[in-house]
Amino acid sequence: MTELVASVKKILEPLSADALEEHLYAIGAERYHNLHPFHHLLHSGALNKGQVQAWALNRYCYQAAIPMKDASLIGRIEDRELRREWLHRVTDHDGTDDDEGGIMRWLILTDGLGLDRDFVISRAGALPATRFAVEAYIRYVREMPLLQAVASSLTELFAPKIHRDRIAGMLQNYDFIDDNLMSYGTRRLNQATSDAEFALTYVRAHAITAEQQQMVVDALLFKMNVLWVQLDALHMAYVEPGMIPPGAFVPDDRRG
Amino acid sequence: MTELVASVKKILEPLSADALEEHLYAIGAERYHNLHPFHHLLHSGALNKGQVQAWALNRYCYQAAIPMKDASLIGRIEDRELRREWLHRVTDHDGTDDDEGGIMRWLILTDGLGLDRDFVISRAGALPATRFAVEAYIRYVREMPLLQAVASSLTELFAPKIHRDRIAGMLQNYDFIDDNLMSYGTRRLNQATSDAEFALTYVRAHAITAEQQQMVVDALLFKMNVLWVQLDALHMAYVEPGMIPPGAFVPDDRRG
Repeated sequence: MTELVASVKKILEPLSADALEEHLYAIGAERYHNLHPFHHLLHSGALNKGQVQAWALNRYCYQAAIPMKDASLIGRIEDRELRREWLHRVTDHDGTDDDEGGIMRWLILTDGLGLDRDFVISRAGALPATRFAVEAYIRYVREMPLLQAVASSLTELFAPKIHRDRIAGMLQNYDFIDDNLMSYGTRRLNQATSDAEFALTYVRAHAITAEQQQMVVDALLFKMNVLWVQLDALHMAYVEPGMIPPGAFVPDDRRG
Repeated sequence: MTELVASVKKILEPLSADALEEHLYAIGAERYHNLHPFHHLLHSGALNKGQVQAWALNRYCYQAAIPMKDASLIGRIEDRELRREWLHRVTDHDGTDDDEGGIMRWLILTDGLGLDRDFVISRAGALPATRFAVEAYIRYVREMPLLQAVASSLTELFAPKIHRDRIAGMLQNYDFIDDNLMSYGTRRLNQATSDAEFALTYVRAHAITAEQQQMVVDALLFKMNVLWVQLDALHMAYVEPGMIPPGAFVPDDRRG
């Protein structure tokens, strides 16, 4: 485990916008879930198909929650311009007449992995820890101050790299993965970059006092935990020690 | 892992009250967290002091949430008699002029284990998975139909045995544990029994249709997950594979 430096530093005096941004990036370098061992295993081809199924099935819960949290956020915004700006996050995931959207692209992945689509959508096989983390994220965005609700999306600053690593790694290392199945990630590469830039600009402009800046940091750390917990739960259940909690998805190769 | 039979059965026709009770007990026999390997390790003396500290520190989050969830429940009850009946659950944990209460008894345990009391109360070292699960429980009791809010307390049907096993096992197996530190569990032995009987009587009387009875079962399964997730997270972080998530409590023997 990396020694945590930026993540534990408290902001006591207001930082410049640039220094705040630098601080947020330093936290990402310490805490983003690309550092989790499960992602190394996933991207390097070390998992079997059942383990990849478990990942995709659980990650669906997170994907499915994104438009709910973003619509909840829009529902709290007084500023029409900001609502308009945020709206495409909902349609990016839910789709439009012209675009199937991110959730459907995720289901194309789970289809391709051989998972029953209704089972995936039901979340019945998802790990309880995944569900609790995802619900905590939705609630956070609904209930916390708007600055923190916006700032909790800042993990997208670090997303493009993980999508690139995942696409390249999974295409190269798994014979059951092809370009079509990876279309979710391919599309997110551009979406996540512009979303993250917008949220970062918002935070730079609205987090002025030390207290506001610490709130932003706390929101980012909260969201890092939401992401990390999901991988911890996958690792625990499906890698090591491989203790699948009662009622959760059991891959074919783990059936007695 | 035990084959799940009762836990996956759907109630399609109304059961008699006795048959419903039997069904709830059957779920307990399959899913209660006394079955989790972490509890076997804890009670049998297989953990070191740092691991027991991690357990007590994380379990504090759950203890601290109980009076909040019970007060939230009372705040939703129209029936004065039922509110009066439920109130002692708040004072059992928060204490009164005459009784220090369960939360203070838990802090006596964490004190005795050498943990800083303010650190424990801050929850700063608790596992994110613990916090998400505990918050999910509070929210469930606040937001779900009253029948399910009440039924989610039914895990107490199975609590006396785990308290007895824990008290006997920990006193016998750890030289850093004494009667004083175990006072929380000793006191809960009687409290949990009468609380569980009351909730069971309530559920027997109010869950009449198959749909209501399934709601009760779902509430019990939800709560089983809240408890199981906490032990999964402890096992993952502090036993096997021992991956402590960034920012969580690190026992002395795990420091680099």
